Amino acid sequence: MLDPAHNLEERVRERLNSLTKPPGSLGQLEDIAVRFALIREEEMPSPARKGLYIFCGDHGVTEEGVSRYPQSVTRQMVRNFLDGGAAINVLCRRLQIRPVVVDMGVCGASIPGVVDRKIADGTSNFARVPAMTRDQAERALQHGSALAEEAATQYDVVGLGEMGIGNTTAASAILSVYSSASPYETVGPGSGLDSQGVRRKAELIEKALALHKPSPGDPLGVLAAVGGFEFAGIAGFLIRACRLKLPVVLDGFPCCAGALIAKVIEPLALQTAFFSHESREPGHRRMLVLLEAKPYFNLGLRLGEGTGAALCMGIIDSAVRLYREMATFNEAGISGPSSGELG
Amino acid sequence: MLDPAHNLEERVRERLNSLTKPPGSLGQLEDIAVRFALIREEEMPSPARKGLYIFCGDHGVTEEGVSRYPQSVTRQMVRNFLDGGAAINVLCRRLQIRPVVVDMGVCGASIPGVVDRKIADGTSNFARVPAMTRDQAERALQHGSALAEEAATQYDVVGLGEMGIGNTTAASAILSVYSSASPYETVGPGSGLDSQGVRRKAELIEKALALHKPSPGDPLGVLAAVGGFEFAGIAGFLIRACRLKLPVVLDGFPCCAGALIAKVIEPLALQTAFFSHESREPGHRRMLVLLEAKPYFNLGLRLGEGTGAALCMGIIDSAVRLYREMATFNEAGISGPSSGELG
Repeated sequence: MLDPAHNLEERVRERLNSLTKPPGSLGQLEDIAVRFALIREEEMPSPARKGLYIFCGDHGVTEEGVSRYPQSVTRQMVRNFLDGGAAINVLCRRLQIRPVVVDMGVCGASIPGVVDRKIADGTSNFARVPAMTRDQAERALQHGSALAEEAATQYDVVGLGEMGIGNTTAASAILSVYSSASPYETVGPGSGLDSQGVRRKAELIEKALALHKPSPGDPLGVLAAVGGFEFAGIAGFLIRACRLKLPVVLDGFPCCAGALIAKVIEPLALQTAFFSHESREPGHRRMLVLLEAKPYFNLGLRLGEGTGAALCMGIIDSAVRLYREMATFNEAGISGPSSGELG
Repeated sequence: MLDPAHNLEERVRERLNSLTKPPGSLGQLEDIAVRFALIREEEMPSPARKGLYIFCGDHGVTEEGVSRYPQSVTRQMVRNFLDGGAAINVLCRRLQIRPVVVDMGVCGASIPGVVDRKIADGTSNFARVPAMTRDQAERALQHGSALAEEAATQYDVVGLGEMGIGNTTAASAILSVYSSASPYETVGPGSGLDSQGVRRKAELIEKALALHKPSPGDPLGVLAAVGGFEFAGIAGFLIRACRLKLPVVLDGFPCCAGALIAKVIEPLALQTAFFSHESREPGHRRMLVLLEAKPYFNLGLRLGEGTGAALCMGIIDSAVRLYREMATFNEAGISGPSSGELG
């Protein structure tokens, strides 16, 4: 993949260097344009059609008081997404991105307007029992995969986001499984816990890992033990998207937990992924290191929903449009650099 | 200024905390929204009308071979700006920003379509004589000031950029005057010098500073000795904009040289300024430290034109729209956080 045969990268870099700017002066925007073209396998790819999938699911572990917000807020926020009142809606309007709200397992009846892929009314409380069955994890992955299949026919680039009260607890648990870090090093305040709450969150994860003993080599088992339906959906999406030449833009900590699972299942899963930002949730940095990912910005976000991904899609859109739309030195009749004896 | 009397900040933060997200979870975007409202002295400011002024000028010091590009490229790039083919044009189109091209001193006859504020056909070669007269520096400042006056009636937020072959040499000279750093620490490759060229650039600045002996306490004298017309225009713009409640978004290294001069002339000049990004030109970081500025991103840009400012205006637009357009917990019927015994 990524065009070993057709010199596409060479042609793209040649065009970049022919544009009316000093070579390389657009920095990472040039690298983004190259990468986008290589993923699309097109010399003049378009970034025009943009979608953002918000994978939503509830978490039984909220029973243990791991969030400042009641579980019902997941469902209320899904309604907010549909009504256009959430942060992600504002960003999608501004950046001309179509939001798609996917119910992977929100408690209660399906809400008109969502893409209904509900596996169950939330996961089970993994402090006591596994979060889900292996079969549920498998089905959630398949739903994600099918959504990627659909997305690839509709969009040039897709952002991924999530919503699920309690899901930073699940994300920290997954990170603990795959890193050498103890839960005390992978947890954070999530939507706003105080230090005592954060400590209790770590204790809970420590006990849950001791109870379920998930094995890093068994990603489905990890999802089943301490995962979330939205993570499985994201993982399935990524695993399929990488084969469909679909650029995918990842958001923050829970989203990257899905990416981590995807990478364990399919080592090439992140080949078309862009890591948007580093969030303020402490585990995210560790997660990014584990994923060998270099995010584009750090604005102290810790909201989720795909907000960081959306902002990054604006940057990607800019990068690809610069590459497509700038005049070349020839077109503009501008002198190139001197051959350099004067420096 | 910045509303000591009317509790505007308190009201803005109260609204931010009433929006459907955990308090503070939009990170720096929340701070941007607060700052924007305080600058505008409005509880619901609009970011809709956006302009970007590209201050252009030529530099006599290009005679000394301080750039890989011939001086004529300044004029060619001005035509490119007017034709819509430059990087800044692509970004302005995408971000709905109106570009305004200001000729502060480009060599040759005025080009139809520019805002003609030409002081002279480029500065003089400051390796041998002062770059300009004090009177020219003064007039360039006044032009910048008048442009800010005009801009304040037309725009809610204005980006500043520059174009001038040779102007990183002038910017490094100004930085050397105001920092403890030697020219060897303030220079960089600009549009693409090799290491030998960079060293010669530093030597040249060292000699010029020894020749003209500009005094930090005499900013007009610094401009006259080693400045550029576009820096003076930017400085004049900032000095006036800060009194007009006009948010101004700064770009990279040469632009910040103008900001530095502005701050020395008027200590409050940067009160309405946003520093967009840290560029790859090495002196910029030192300049930002000197200005006590914390930029929002670092994408390795080193192009100028206002490209970093334009991208940052997209972020500011997002921040203010999030603040204006998101639903409140009440409007969306969403439960707030628990009082916290569970953390």
